[in-house]
Amino acid sequence: MKGYGVITTGQSGWLEKEVPVCGPLDALLKPVAVAPCTSDVHTMHGGGGPKKNRILGHEAVGEVVEVGSLVKRFKKGDIVVVPCVTPDWREVSLQDGLNNSHDIASMGSFKFLIRKDGVFAEIFHVNEADSNLVLLPEGVSAEAALMTVDMMSTGFYGAEMAEIGFGDTVVVIGIGPVGLMSVAGASLSGAGRIIGVGTRPNCIEVAKAYGATDIVSYKAGDIVEQVLEMTGGGADKVIIAGGNQDAFRQAVEMVKPKGIVANVNYFDLSDTLSMPALSWGLGMSDKVIKGGFCPGGALRIEKLLNLIKHGRIDTTKLITHRFDGFEKIEEAFLLMDAKPAELIKPVVFM
Amino acid sequence: MKGYGVITTGQSGWLEKEVPVCGPLDALLKPVAVAPCTSDVHTMHGGGGPKKNRILGHEAVGEVVEVGSLVKRFKKGDIVVVPCVTPDWREVSLQDGLNNSHDIASMGSFKFLIRKDGVFAEIFHVNEADSNLVLLPEGVSAEAALMTVDMMSTGFYGAEMAEIGFGDTVVVIGIGPVGLMSVAGASLSGAGRIIGVGTRPNCIEVAKAYGATDIVSYKAGDIVEQVLEMTGGGADKVIIAGGNQDAFRQAVEMVKPKGIVANVNYFDLSDTLSMPALSWGLGMSDKVIKGGFCPGGALRIEKLLNLIKHGRIDTTKLITHRFDGFEKIEEAFLLMDAKPAELIKPVVFM
Amino acid sequence: MKGYGVITTGQSGWLEKEVPVCGPLDALLKPVAVAPCTSDVHTMHGGGGPKKNRILGHEAVGEVVEVGSLVKRFKKGDIVVVPCVTPDWREVSLQDGLNNSHDIASMGSFKFLIRKDGVFAEIFHVNEADSNLVLLPEGVSAEAALMTVDMMSTGFYGAEMAEIGFGDTVVVIGIGPVGLMSVAGASLSGAGRIIGVGTRPNCIEVAKAYGATDIVSYKAGDIVEQVLEMTGGGADKVIIAGGNQDAFRQAVEMVKPKGIVANVNYFDLSDTLSMPALSWGLGMSDKVIKGGFCPGGALRIEKLLNLIKHGRIDTTKLITHRFDGFEKIEEAFLLMDAKPAELIKPVVFM
Amino acid sequence: MKGYGVITTGQSGWLEKEVPVCGPLDALLKPVAVAPCTSDVHTMHGGGGPKKNRILGHEAVGEVVEVGSLVKRFKKGDIVVVPCVTPDWREVSLQDGLNNSHDIASMGSFKFLIRKDGVFAEIFHVNEADSNLVLLPEGVSAEAALMTVDMMSTGFYGAEMAEIGFGDTVVVIGIGPVGLMSVAGASLSGAGRIIGVGTRPNCIEVAKAYGATDIVSYKAGDIVEQVLEMTGGGADKVIIAGGNQDAFRQAVEMVKPKGIVANVNYFDLSDTLSMPALSWGLGMSDKVIKGGFCPGGALRIEKLLNLIKHGRIDTTKLITHRFDGFEKIEEAFLLMDAKPAELIKPVVFM
Repeated sequence: MKGYGVITTGQSGWLEKEVPVCGPLDALLKPVAVAPCTSDVHTMHGGGGPKKNRILGHEAVGEVVEVGSLVKRFKKGDIVVVPCVTPDWREVSLQDGLNNSHDIASMGSFKFLIRKDGVFAEIFHVNEADSNLVLLPEGVSAEAALMTVDMMSTGFYGAEMAEIGFGDTVVVIGIGPVGLMSVAGASLSGAGRIIGVGTRPNCIEVAKAYGATDIVSYKAGDIVEQVLEMTGGGADKVIIAGGNQDAFRQAVEMVKPKGIVANVNYFDLSDTLSMPALSWGLGMSDKVIKGGFCPGGALRIEKLLNLIKHGRIDTTKLITHRFDGFEKIEEAFLLMDAKPAELIKPVVFM
Repeated sequence: MKGYGVITTGQSGWLEKEVPVCGPLDALLKPVAVAPCTSDVHTMHGGGGPKKNRILGHEAVGEVVEVGSLVKRFKKGDIVVVPCVTPDWREVSLQDGLNNSHDIASMGSFKFLIRKDGVFAEIFHVNEADSNLVLLPEGVSAEAALMTVDMMSTGFYGAEMAEIGFGDTVVVIGIGPVGLMSVAGASLSGAGRIIGVGTRPNCIEVAKAYGATDIVSYKAGDIVEQVLEMTGGGADKVIIAGGNQDAFRQAVEMVKPKGIVANVNYFDLSDTLSMPALSWGLGMSDKVIKGGFCPGGALRIEKLLNLIKHGRIDTTKLITHRFDGFEKIEEAFLLMDAKPAELIKPVVFM
Repeated sequence: MKGYGVITTGQSGWLEKEVPVCGPLDALLKPVAVAPCTSDVHTMHGGGGPKKNRILGHEAVGEVVEVGSLVKRFKKGDIVVVPCVTPDWREVSLQDGLNNSHDIASMGSFKFLIRKDGVFAEIFHVNEADSNLVLLPEGVSAEAALMTVDMMSTGFYGAEMAEIGFGDTVVVIGIGPVGLMSVAGASLSGAGRIIGVGTRPNCIEVAKAYGATDIVSYKAGDIVEQVLEMTGGGADKVIIAGGNQDAFRQAVEMVKPKGIVANVNYFDLSDTLSMPALSWGLGMSDKVIKGGFCPGGALRIEKLLNLIKHGRIDTTKLITHRFDGFEKIEEAFLLMDAKPAELIKPVVFM
Repeated sequence: MKGYGVITTGQSGWLEKEVPVCGPLDALLKPVAVAPCTSDVHTMHGGGGPKKNRILGHEAVGEVVEVGSLVKRFKKGDIVVVPCVTPDWREVSLQDGLNNSHDIASMGSFKFLIRKDGVFAEIFHVNEADSNLVLLPEGVSAEAALMTVDMMSTGFYGAEMAEIGFGDTVVVIGIGPVGLMSVAGASLSGAGRIIGVGTRPNCIEVAKAYGATDIVSYKAGDIVEQVLEMTGGGADKVIIAGGNQDAFRQAVEMVKPKGIVANVNYFDLSDTLSMPALSWGLGMSDKVIKGGFCPGGALRIEKLLNLIKHGRIDTTKLITHRFDGFEKIEEAFLLMDAKPAELIKPVVFM
């Protein structure tokens, strides 16, 4: 079968691979709609270590083409939403309630790209289908649903980790698609003032539509100083959803004592993160630092789809480019790689 | 000075009382805007025990007329928002973080009506002014702010206790002004479906404006059966913000196992609450039951005012009747007592 | 194969049944040590609805005799500890982090007795072996481990739900084996004063060994009055681990405002639970009520076994009677049914 | 009056100062027992910025000699325990429930040394006496109580921040007096294995008495490698209670993904803290980092005293040196500065 991915580090293209094997708990799907993500591009360029002959893509709505012998909730022909995090639910380490396993300090439940071929394929594999897939609900479009599987789940995880209370002032560093979803998640968590940090006009407009009340630009000077001044001493919560290695230090510096920094940004192996000792009160400030990848599984995506279904959020504001046809995956991927200023999120429909 | 209140149980009217004394930490205020509340009416009729010669009223925006010698943050002439719960912050029992003390199973931090004269007075007293008062913020109207001090703080406490997660289905029993604020609070907490239980057309309209997706009526049959059928087995969370003594049992019955019931309704001494053993899984259902009065103090009200200031909520949708002049307190109070179908909340401006 | 259980409601005896079938994720075990429990006796007498021809028993350490084709962590001959709660981990409802599913307000993850034959059998079945079984750790005896699978897991769940803080005063109503484990769990959670409610001398002695500082007896008068007097107004937390239907009301009455009642007692279908409205502050006391069955799975039992391994607790203090030989299950069960005053927990070794 | 403190940075000695003034909410005390602390020594040497003519000392049990006009709970002659953190409870920022205010990233509720003279004085001042003092309970010795006001409160805060669950493996870096209390706090929180990191024989012995199961020494090689090997991949929780600037990085590296690092160590202005990006999963590991100074006030100390009163802990194991007489403060202080290997905690009785 055909798939689009990494030929070798730094080079993407079409690959010819075997159709994956469906285990007794698993399902095989064909894509209905997919979206390239910065992580796919990052992986192609060697982020997370060199890869070869690996199909990319981890955001998909698909159609079930085969289910394993032990699968009960799905059958051939079902249109399903596929979380980008698909845990092996039988793993004991998942019993701690976080719905994401971590091996060797990494994301053990993130299978696509890292452990197997991704969704830019004629046929792709999903482990433990009963626990990981969700039927596309009536009244939710495939493209709206597609935005939940990574962008919304990841961005909203930032808001969840930040434990936002009614009326809190929240900074979101980075207003690409994940950061925009953090803005929306903060707004749906009862934040008062929401300060987005970013520069691209398109993103600023969507950030405001999702609830940002203020925008801070790197171009207008030091973002820490700007936030400290605007807030009179620091924000209640800071979500890192983009930025370079400085974002870590900046977040710790711009959050109030007793506040929370929540990171959903994937730093690079070459990044150096420095903990600003004084801003951290020399260890006494009660500033809490969190960072993680979104939990996986069906229940979470069902809950996020509920928000779309009941009109709490329109995730399609993220989508700036639409393509039709499997072969357009290449164009969409290359667009993501080029990252023109007006791009937020491209989608490819089959 | 003049005040409006209980002459004797069941009889309200104008009273002549001494001007209260301002302690070193306290403030005296004159009302700018006040709102009668069901609790004032309830107190007049003898709820919470017989009262005599007691000025009523516990929802006010006021102007500072005197401050005690130790007060630092306020001065004569300041226009301030007055929480209905004003703790004595020096009490050790407040150090548990709930910001509400309880003596003899009662609300020790709720001072007006219970422990001293209320705000329907030419001059009223506020204990520990520095900790309990909030300057009316720029950009927030007095009437919008007035809705925070009890209605929003109480209704939102229901949503807080319910620990609503993204996409949860939430039932709000009772859609009077507190219940409407619970609907709004649930919506601002990321609820998906919100089912309001009530019948008055005016309230239903406002409930929908605040985010209710469905309305269930007592008139259409048993509300438990309706909710169980609509939700396929129970809601994730149920907030009790009205209803009679049956509301307790109904809430436990209509919440899912592992769900939460959050009560902000003040039951009557004559009420009998029965815990439905089977619905509670004979003690094994992991249904959590909470109930309490809203926390007090300045910080909470500041946070709620932030939500108004940043456009997250318009609390004035609650206000159906407006009166001008101190002497109109009587008319507003009697309206609250009569409770015509179209009434949600009356406000009196001075 | 032979098993001991309910012949028909009210009548126990030896049964002849087919050896269970081992699914691809499952395991078959033969018992190494088992312990009868009040729930077995309760089931025999028709509690939870009439049963027929059902093997009883849900507390076991066993030896693996067969594993399904997909099982990876265990093999024939392994000596394993078997949680009494063994969830189907692929169920979406388990993704909420509680590690216990509930269907129809019941405990869906409790399989033995309710959904299939129990462990008083020559061979018994365990679903999802990889997720539910734990190797008996070196340095932990089979009998000590056997006490974790229900008694310790259930009793400690009471302490967990109670959210005990350092120095809290905790009441444990009922000091049978589960209550004794709640006493131990409270002590290992940093409780200060621990008040056990019970009368049997043997249990009182063990309660003190596990950390009870005071004992209150039903025989010395109303237990609510005794606790209110001893504590000057109520305990911080109350765990219900026994008692009749009054225990619910008593717990709500003897806990302080803002305290927590945690129930691990299995009430009867015929019980009426009444919520004392006034003690509950007419809904305003912030007394939180919880009740549930212990979470299941391997991780929890591994953690509890760690406590034994590192000398934090000696669970064998619960064991008052020891029997040798499979056929002694009958004698142990009948002892449990007779419940002589000196009995806490009997164990049968094979 | 006389007091012992900093004459100028680096030089300690006896000072002659005015008796402090007692505000209306405050109290003046004379010491009954005091203990020098590393922070006193640190302050003398210029840590936290240069100080001059400042009386040191922040750990005291005292006798009330004067109370302000608004103080209700205490009177002359009362023997009281004095928390080292004494918040101004009327501050709005304290209403967030943490019982410690922070100004300019610092500990605003820590008054002694930083904001006013300390307790090594003939008379010392305590703000908001009613909220901050605790009567020495019957059955608790002054020296046992003295260990609660900083050592136990701080060390136990490490255990609280670490959110220890039953059976967790916990590392405590640094087993000086605070670290020893973190060991005891972890043990009283249900930890299974507790690994203390330290070298001094006296401390190792006391650590084991408080519940440490293993000791790791800096002298035996890299402590991260040792812990990773012992635990097969990382501890559940790590408490930093000592060590140099590397302790931060080491803690992040030796905690499991999804684990918690809790810091109660006061780093130095000259320290550089580096966040190890890879061990932190490039931001994706769900390792939570916390750090703060212990909450203040009477309630917390009352709860800690409960643990002593009910025999849960013997804090006097910390005390290695005892002195009699006010003038011995100098000797005790100089001992703390010299820090001989056998010293844990000296106490001076008046």
